[in-house]
Amino acid sequence: MKTIQLNKRPVGTPQLSDFKLVNEEQPQIAVGEVLLKAAYLSVDPYLRGRMSEGKSYIEPFELNQAMSSGMVAEVVGSKHEGFSKGEFVTGMLEWKEYQNHNGEDLMKLDPNMAPLSAYLGVLGMTGLTAYLGLTEIGKPKEGETVVVSGAAGAVGSVVGQIAKLLGCRVVGIAGTDEKVEQLKAEYGFDEAINYKTTTDMNQAIAEACPNGVDVYFDNVGGEVSDGVMLNVNRFARIIVCGAISLYNATSMPMGPRIQPILIKNSVLMQGFIVFNFQDKYTEAISHLAKWLKVGELISTETIVEGFEKTPQAFIDLFEGKNKGKMIVKI
Amino acid sequence: MKTIQLNKRPVGTPQLSDFKLVNEEQPQIAVGEVLLKAAYLSVDPYLRGRMSEGKSYIEPFELNQAMSSGMVAEVVGSKHEGFSKGEFVTGMLEWKEYQNHNGEDLMKLDPNMAPLSAYLGVLGMTGLTAYLGLTEIGKPKEGETVVVSGAAGAVGSVVGQIAKLLGCRVVGIAGTDEKVEQLKAEYGFDEAINYKTTTDMNQAIAEACPNGVDVYFDNVGGEVSDGVMLNVNRFARIIVCGAISLYNATSMPMGPRIQPILIKNSVLMQGFIVFNFQDKYTEAISHLAKWLKVGELISTETIVEGFEKTPQAFIDLFEGKNKGKMIVKI
Repeated sequence: MKTIQLNKRPVGTPQLSDFKLVNEEQPQIAVGEVLLKAAYLSVDPYLRGRMSEGKSYIEPFELNQAMSSGMVAEVVGSKHEGFSKGEFVTGMLEWKEYQNHNGEDLMKLDPNMAPLSAYLGVLGMTGLTAYLGLTEIGKPKEGETVVVSGAAGAVGSVVGQIAKLLGCRVVGIAGTDEKVEQLKAEYGFDEAINYKTTTDMNQAIAEACPNGVDVYFDNVGGEVSDGVMLNVNRFARIIVCGAISLYNATSMPMGPRIQPILIKNSVLMQGFIVFNFQDKYTEAISHLAKWLKVGELISTETIVEGFEKTPQAFIDLFEGKNKGKMIVKI
Repeated sequence: MKTIQLNKRPVGTPQLSDFKLVNEEQPQIAVGEVLLKAAYLSVDPYLRGRMSEGKSYIEPFELNQAMSSGMVAEVVGSKHEGFSKGEFVTGMLEWKEYQNHNGEDLMKLDPNMAPLSAYLGVLGMTGLTAYLGLTEIGKPKEGETVVVSGAAGAVGSVVGQIAKLLGCRVVGIAGTDEKVEQLKAEYGFDEAINYKTTTDMNQAIAEACPNGVDVYFDNVGGEVSDGVMLNVNRFARIIVCGAISLYNATSMPMGPRIQPILIKNSVLMQGFIVFNFQDKYTEAISHLAKWLKVGELISTETIVEGFEKTPQAFIDLFEGKNKGKMIVKI
C-alpha cells in the first residue's frame, strides 16, 4: 500500500520532487486500534509551513516520514470497542492508504447529514475557520462592509456567504475573471475584483466599497492587502487568517508599514488558528449545518481523484487552480 | 499678546520656519465666556499629523491659524457662571497667551492634589494613554513580559511603571545610555536597551526577554519594532500607540510584512487613541492619582520655559531630547 512522504524541504514553491511515493506493508492492528482506509484527503496552504523547519504553531513534518492533514477515512477493521467496521471518521491522519489508529481525536461522521467530503470543507476546519474567524474577531454588524481576499478559495467562499447571511455588504478579491463571476453569481457577493487584472487595488477597493471597509478577512497578505488597508474605516477589524502570497517567499517579504494606519483608524488586526476557538466548534457547526441543509450555504469543492495526485493538488493551491475546497478522493 | 500659528506644512521633520509667532490684540470676553491665561502647554508627537493635510482622526491645523494642544490655564476673567477668577482649568486650547473660551470641555483642576503640570502628564492624556492602552488592549497578566518602546518618553515611562505595579517583567527601549540607566534606576524597569548602540534588536530583545514577549507597547514603530515582533509569544498583544519613527517620513515607509508573525502566534495588534476609552477616564485617573500620591508612580517632566520656545520644544521631541513629558511653562 502507498504512502506519501516528505522527500526534501521545499525552497520557495513546493515541487513534486519534494514528495515521494513509497510502498509499505499493509499495517496490522493491535487490541484497542482500528484499521482506517483513506477516503478523502484535504490539502491546505498551511501545510507549506510544516514542510519547512522551525517552530510554528504545530511541529514541522519530518523528512522521510508520511505527511498528514485532515482526512476522512473508513473503518475497515476494528479491535477498538468504540468503533465498528463500516463507520466513517475524520481527524488529522497520515498520508497513507491504510493506517492503524488508537481512536484518539477521531470524530465519527454521519454520511446521511452531508456528503463525506463536506467534513473536510464547510463542516470541517474550513467552515470553522471561516465562521469563527469572521464572528469572533471580525464581529461584523448588519450593514457593514466586509472584504474577503482569496474569496473563491475554500475559506474565503464560506466567509463571504456567511457575511451575506449576517446582512453585510460583501466584496471579494480573486485571481481570475471566472472566479469573480462565480463570486457574484453563485455565492451572492455584492462586488468582486480580479486582482490580477487590476492595476490599482487601492482605487478598486475604494470603488467597490463606497462606505469604506469595516471588516477584512485576509487569506492572502501581500500587495492585495496593502490596497485594502488604505480603505479601512475607523474601528475596522482585520482577520489575519492566511498569507498564501507570502508562504513560498525565500527572503523576508517587505511592504508598507501598517502601524500608522492602525493608529489613525484605531484598527484591530488579529492572527489566529481555528484551534484557538475549540470551545465554539459545536455552536459553529450547528449554524453551518443548518445553512448547508436549507441551501443558504453552498459548498464548493475541487475534487482530484487518486492518492498519488496529492502532491500536485497541493502545489496547485499556490496557483489558485482550486475553486473552493481542494480535496483528494482516494 | 503672542500666538503661535502654523506658517507652512512641514516636509519631513518640522522646522522652526514652519511656525510663526504673531502678535494679536488681547481678546475681550462676552457673556458666557471666560478669559484664560496660558500656564502650561503640552507638546506631543501626534501634533505632527495635524500639521499635514489630509483626513485623520482629528482635523488638520489650518495655515495662518493658531495651533492647539492640551494646556493648563488660569481663569483671569469670567462672565461665565461656572467659572471664577483664579481657578485653573485644562482642555484642548489654542497656542495663545490669552484666549476667550465658552467653557465647554474645560476641566477644573485641584492645584492641591498634584502640581498643575501633572494634568498634562501623568494625570492627563499621557497617563490615560499609558494606563488605558496597557490595560484595555494589552491586558497584562502577572508574571508576563511587557516590552515598551519610547520607554523614557512621556507615555512609555508611565506604561513601564504601571506594568511593574501589575507584576510584570518590564523591558524598555530608549535612545541614550542615560535614559537606559534612568529606566532601570528611577522607574524600576527590569531591563533596558539602547536601540542606537544595539546592532541586532532581535537578539537584544531575545536576551532581555528569556520568556519571550507577551505584551508590546509600541510608541515608535520602524526597525525597533521589527526586532520586538520577532520575539512575540503565542497570543501576544501589541498596543500600537505611536510611530514616532515614521511621522516625518516623506515617502511610504517599508518594512518586513508582519502578517506571517501574527498568524503563527495568534497575535493581536491594535491601534488606538485615548478618546476611544473615554468612559474609563474616571476609573483610570483614580488609579493614577492614588499611585502618584503614595509615590509608586514617578512623574517625569522636561519643562521648557517661555511660550516662544514651544516650536523648538516640539521639534526636540523627534530627537528624543525630552525625558518624560515635554511641557512648556508660560
